[in-house]
Amino acid sequence: MNPKRYLPILQWLPGYGRRTLGSDLLAAVIVTIMLIPQSLAYAMLAGLPPEVGLYASIAPLVIYAIFGTSRTLAVGPVAVVSLMTAAAVGQVAPQGTPEYLGAALVLALMSGLILTLMGVARLGFLANFLSHPVISGFITATGLIIAAGQLKHVLGVEAAGHNLLELGASLAASLGGVNAPTLAIGVSVLAFLYAARRWLKGGLVKLGVPARPADMLTKAAPILAVAVTTLATWWLGLDELGVAVVGEVPAGLPPLTLPGVELQLWRELFMAALLISVIGFVESVSVGQTLAAKRRQRIDPDQELVGLGTSNIAASFTGGMPVTGGFARSVVNFDAGAETPAAGAFTAVGIGAAALLLTPLIAYLPIATLAATIIVAVLSLVDLAAIRRTWGYSRCDAAAMLVTIAVTLVSGVESGILAGVVLSLALHLYYTSRPHSAVVGRVPGTEHFRNVQRHQVETDERLAILRVDESLYFANARYLEDTVMALAARQPSLQHIVLACQAVNVIDASALESLEVICARLKDAGVSLHLAEVKGPVMDRLQHTAFCHELTGRVFLSTFDAWRSLHGAESGMGARCGQPVGTPIKPI
Amino acid sequence: MNPKRYLPILQWLPGYGRRTLGSDLLAAVIVTIMLIPQSLAYAMLAGLPPEVGLYASIAPLVIYAIFGTSRTLAVGPVAVVSLMTAAAVGQVAPQGTPEYLGAALVLALMSGLILTLMGVARLGFLANFLSHPVISGFITATGLIIAAGQLKHVLGVEAAGHNLLELGASLAASLGGVNAPTLAIGVSVLAFLYAARRWLKGGLVKLGVPARPADMLTKAAPILAVAVTTLATWWLGLDELGVAVVGEVPAGLPPLTLPGVELQLWRELFMAALLISVIGFVESVSVGQTLAAKRRQRIDPDQELVGLGTSNIAASFTGGMPVTGGFARSVVNFDAGAETPAAGAFTAVGIGAAALLLTPLIAYLPIATLAATIIVAVLSLVDLAAIRRTWGYSRCDAAAMLVTIAVTLVSGVESGILAGVVLSLALHLYYTSRPHSAVVGRVPGTEHFRNVQRHQVETDERLAILRVDESLYFANARYLEDTVMALAARQPSLQHIVLACQAVNVIDASALESLEVICARLKDAGVSLHLAEVKGPVMDRLQHTAFCHELTGRVFLSTFDAWRSLHGAESGMGARCGQPVGTPIKPI
Repeated sequence: MNPKRYLPILQWLPGYGRRTLGSDLLAAVIVTIMLIPQSLAYAMLAGLPPEVGLYASIAPLVIYAIFGTSRTLAVGPVAVVSLMTAAAVGQVAPQGTPEYLGAALVLALMSGLILTLMGVARLGFLANFLSHPVISGFITATGLIIAAGQLKHVLGVEAAGHNLLELGASLAASLGGVNAPTLAIGVSVLAFLYAARRWLKGGLVKLGVPARPADMLTKAAPILAVAVTTLATWWLGLDELGVAVVGEVPAGLPPLTLPGVELQLWRELFMAALLISVIGFVESVSVGQTLAAKRRQRIDPDQELVGLGTSNIAASFTGGMPVTGGFARSVVNFDAGAETPAAGAFTAVGIGAAALLLTPLIAYLPIATLAATIIVAVLSLVDLAAIRRTWGYSRCDAAAMLVTIAVTLVSGVESGILAGVVLSLALHLYYTSRPHSAVVGRVPGTEHFRNVQRHQVETDERLAILRVDESLYFANARYLEDTVMALAARQPSLQHIVLACQAVNVIDASALESLEVICARLKDAGVSLHLAEVKGPVMDRLQHTAFCHELTGRVFLSTFDAWRSLHGAESGMGARCGQPVGTPIKPI
Repeated sequence: MNPKRYLPILQWLPGYGRRTLGSDLLAAVIVTIMLIPQSLAYAMLAGLPPEVGLYASIAPLVIYAIFGTSRTLAVGPVAVVSLMTAAAVGQVAPQGTPEYLGAALVLALMSGLILTLMGVARLGFLANFLSHPVISGFITATGLIIAAGQLKHVLGVEAAGHNLLELGASLAASLGGVNAPTLAIGVSVLAFLYAARRWLKGGLVKLGVPARPADMLTKAAPILAVAVTTLATWWLGLDELGVAVVGEVPAGLPPLTLPGVELQLWRELFMAALLISVIGFVESVSVGQTLAAKRRQRIDPDQELVGLGTSNIAASFTGGMPVTGGFARSVVNFDAGAETPAAGAFTAVGIGAAALLLTPLIAYLPIATLAATIIVAVLSLVDLAAIRRTWGYSRCDAAAMLVTIAVTLVSGVESGILAGVVLSLALHLYYTSRPHSAVVGRVPGTEHFRNVQRHQVETDERLAILRVDESLYFANARYLEDTVMALAARQPSLQHIVLACQAVNVIDASALESLEVICARLKDAGVSLHLAEVKGPVMDRLQHTAFCHELTGRVFLSTFDAWRSLHGAESGMGARCGQPVGTPIKPI
């Protein structure tokens, strides 16, 4: 057992030096500035008090620095996971109650345990079953729901709902009560953030600021919006005109919390915890891999599960909420020059200082400002062009994407992601249950065999060669039976069928039985069955089976060998029945 | 639209002649004699009055003759479906009540509708997802449960339970109350039927009876057991000594019945109806295909769904129970010389006559006799040797089989089949999520490339050729990323990676994105990515994608072309970046 594998901190801490410290500290300062408004905003999105977002950005970052394998991933509350948290916790407790807060802690703990166990059991591959179109569709739909959900804060009205239909209806019903000062703040911040994202960096570069600092300043725009609108609200007394503000936030370091252990609550939250874990992991690991590759580093997906899992467990014991690696902040961390996870630990110190010192200052922070930062952030995740791009490449993938988007928008996040996964698996199984195969003939004068429908090739009316282009397993075994029997029924003069197996990596027990059935049925019909180009490992397993002894024909090394032996040969199956079968062939 | 396809009766009825009539009538007489005790027994197994089994063997047979595509399949109540019926209906109503009877009708109707709809939607392929080991394990486990469940009738005690544990405990608790005359009848019939199955045919053949009639007589042994034990019970008044008998059975043709339409009941029975449909269909279609192939006929699985579906609907409106094509009786029908589905219609007439005329005679039929016929029939389905055989061939298939058997025995039929299906799909997906691939090198002096780990081949430290042995889709896309990036990380002098795609039938949208990611990451690392041997249809789709334009390398016709161009070439990626990409290649 290699301790460096399970404690990745040992890989970088011993060689930690002053130069690295400098880079990491700078990155930490920049990420801290970016993370403060994000933490507050995503806590609000999850329906939790703002300080919970800060708490979730302290202990988890330190723990990730110990157990995580990405050098530059920045962990904390993120938009999609916060929305999923709100949807899950909202079903077991009303917002604003201690039960709601407690359920969020339980959700973080469960998600942490699930992730850690998956990591220990090396189940990281499970995330592969979320196809890219499903993830992309899910994130687009989630972004739209989040943006729609924040509109009420920008308008200063009451509205509720976990999907677009509910939100739309609720918003429409309450449009009469729009609060003008709130709307003014919300729209100004939206416009400012949009403009900053669009033009600030270019403008600064034109003014002579180098590209990287210009980029950093652009990313710090939200903190400027927070400062200005908070000051304005306090100065003008806008809260007395109906502008909702964050209000009193307790100053101090994260409290020690003990998540509840009621079995009923755990059972109700299990499915949500599982989905949050998987979605969070997929989002985090793809960011981590992208950044690692830029420096020719590697991350270990199974250890990443442990890193994220322990971070969530830490969050649950320090008054936090479910966390994962965020895209935008990790890129900022990377660009700012972070070299080791120590940057994350330093960020935690920065957020801790903010929780201690800055909280009294944000009492007058308008909720509309936070809502506007969320809207701008999540709308950048919405990628409607991906729908058209995917449609152009593959109808099947586009269908999975559209169903994910539609179900997520109409029925909510959990149903959406489940529908996408189930549909993409079903479509995949559907297509592999109809394996590619082609009747091939000889390209005249060569040893090559090509599809008879696409090429001018030699054929033989007593001999059919079927190239099987896929591994044979239970879902396509019966289809192979149909294909072969149809071939035999179509060609009454047929005496030999050769299955060319160069693309067959595996023949499972069902397919083996199908081959036995095919062989027996062909025998009844007076046709012998041969195999060609069987791969080494496949042949090793076939050699000890009844099929190999009952095979009416032979096993040929190559398709051409089969052609040479059977083409023009006079006798039918009888003459070859007794010949040695299962000729040992070289593994490929 | 071809009416012959949707009404297969049109294929054979117009040409129906006197000779065929003779064959069909003879087969019908033999199947009727065999079917009478079976119908009574399977109705009892399903917890229904005995006449229900007869009713289910009348209308469904006539309807199957119109819509079914197998010439020789014999439809009616079968053991596995009857057990599943008992398990499902027992959960919504107590046995012996009108509600129980009503629920069985609803189950037949739902199963009929599901099968018919699946047929119309051409969803016959769904049955392929039941792998052979799962079916085999399920039937073995079901056979054991059925046999254990009938033991109480042979012993003359009370016992209940839907799985082996419950049944065993219940039987053990009631062993004190064994009824001696019942036990005597049960054991005698068991011994007689076992002996008949084992030795009767051989004995008759030795006495000079031709093989086929000897076989028919053997299959008629149960009716002899029924006749003798009924007479004995009546003569000796055994029913007054505690031998349970069938009792009064109303004489008459099937009643017209209207299945209930309460939404709640339908919802509760839906899952069971779905499983009964699929299991019944798979059992029926495999018998049908085996028999059809013997005469070089074909059956159409989708139309079979319609045939079985309409039969079940007919059963539900004529006081019946869920039915499907049975193995033993179809073989008897075939062997007796049935040539068209008219034989089934004639059998229906025979059973109808029995329902009208014979029912008064079976009042004294001992239940122990029926139980013994069930036990002997289902134990022939139990195939424990299959476990060892499958284990020897594939651990993965054996695991699916063992889990199906274990869960079915311990927790019941529905959980068992679901566990088997889910596990076999999960294992399949797990294995395809780690696609076969191999780094290949050139066999010296040839154009062939083989696995570097198995063969002495030429390699090049600046060039790695990776042969991908499977289609690329979402579940294995990330694994490909890992494989390629690990290859690049391992070989620092690498300048070119070639993916040899001769086994890649499909690249889905997720895999395309992975290829883009791989290409970009390799570019960052100064390595260019090339493709070789891309199949025609795959290349057609790739040609219009961004990937094709961003590809840092080229697309080669063959692996050897790639080797010839890149081996020994001095420059890295730079020189080739601008070259034309996506060279049109011939489809394979």
